[in-house]
Amino acid sequence: MKQIAIQDLYPTQLAHCFGCGSQNEQGHQLKTYFKEDHTISHFEVDPKYTAIPGAVYGGLIASLLDCHGTASAAAFACVENNLPLDVAPLQVRCVTGNLNVNFKELTPIGPTLEIKGTLKHMEGRKITVEMTLSAQGQVCATAEILAIALK
Amino acid sequence: MKQIAIQDLYPTQLAHCFGCGSQNEQGHQLKTYFKEDHTISHFEVDPKYTAIPGAVYGGLIASLLDCHGTASAAAFACVENNLPLDVAPLQVRCVTGNLNVNFKELTPIGPTLEIKGTLKHMEGRKITVEMTLSAQGQVCATAEILAIALK
Repeated sequence: MKQIAIQDLYPTQLAHCFGCGSQNEQGHQLKTYFKEDHTISHFEVDPKYTAIPGAVYGGLIASLLDCHGTASAAAFACVENNLPLDVAPLQVRCVTGNLNVNFKELTPIGPTLEIKGTLKHMEGRKITVEMTLSAQGQVCATAEILAIALK
Repeated sequence: MKQIAIQDLYPTQLAHCFGCGSQNEQGHQLKTYFKEDHTISHFEVDPKYTAIPGAVYGGLIASLLDCHGTASAAAFACVENNLPLDVAPLQVRCVTGNLNVNFKELTPIGPTLEIKGTLKHMEGRKITVEMTLSAQGQVCATAEILAIALK
């Protein structure tokens, strides 16, 4: 059975995000999957998203990490609270409180980007997720997000 | 005399950034201006850049702060080193080492966004800039960038 992306479980009225909303036809439509103890997304970069020639611009990197982070936080909160991860609408939807990105290497345009997330901390509605963004196995950026679950 | 935006002084071969490059016709083309002790940009948001309906998505906010931050760092470094801020090509071009964004309020779609930057610290090629992003006088996000001047 094909796994459903976390973003495709968001309530329709909260699925318009340019970065990851299934209802935003012009957007990036990032898809994040929960895999036992981590989350994963893959993304193909349109060459227009250049920084200096050959490298992905920082705004897109931050955008992917932001949307991966809020989806990951929602998934980890569902698991923690024994809520289903395969039934829409997902019972948790998060927004970003803080996003901290370390740009470690220029991210090449061309290879599929891979973003991974692991849970660092959860307390009430505050969920902290650590992430890496890699190209061909090379970590290009690391990040931490503090996500807040909407009431 | 009309002031020239910092990004419009970047060397042509380094002006393709999707967020702020004058050579990227599909990009945001953010324009940042130096004003004595701070920097300022204004930006009109296309409604497609939605987060939850009515609010700007975090990826665009991070993108604007990233490009405003690297431009501000370049400008502050020029001032510090008595290099001209009105002659192309600008002698300093920065990339991002770290970007840390606090999302304090939902950023409304509609009003022109205003981004301000002030110099926090400069040591060699490392330049730290503090920023605010506001809509109608309300600060919606604050950020700090560690920018690195290219050699």
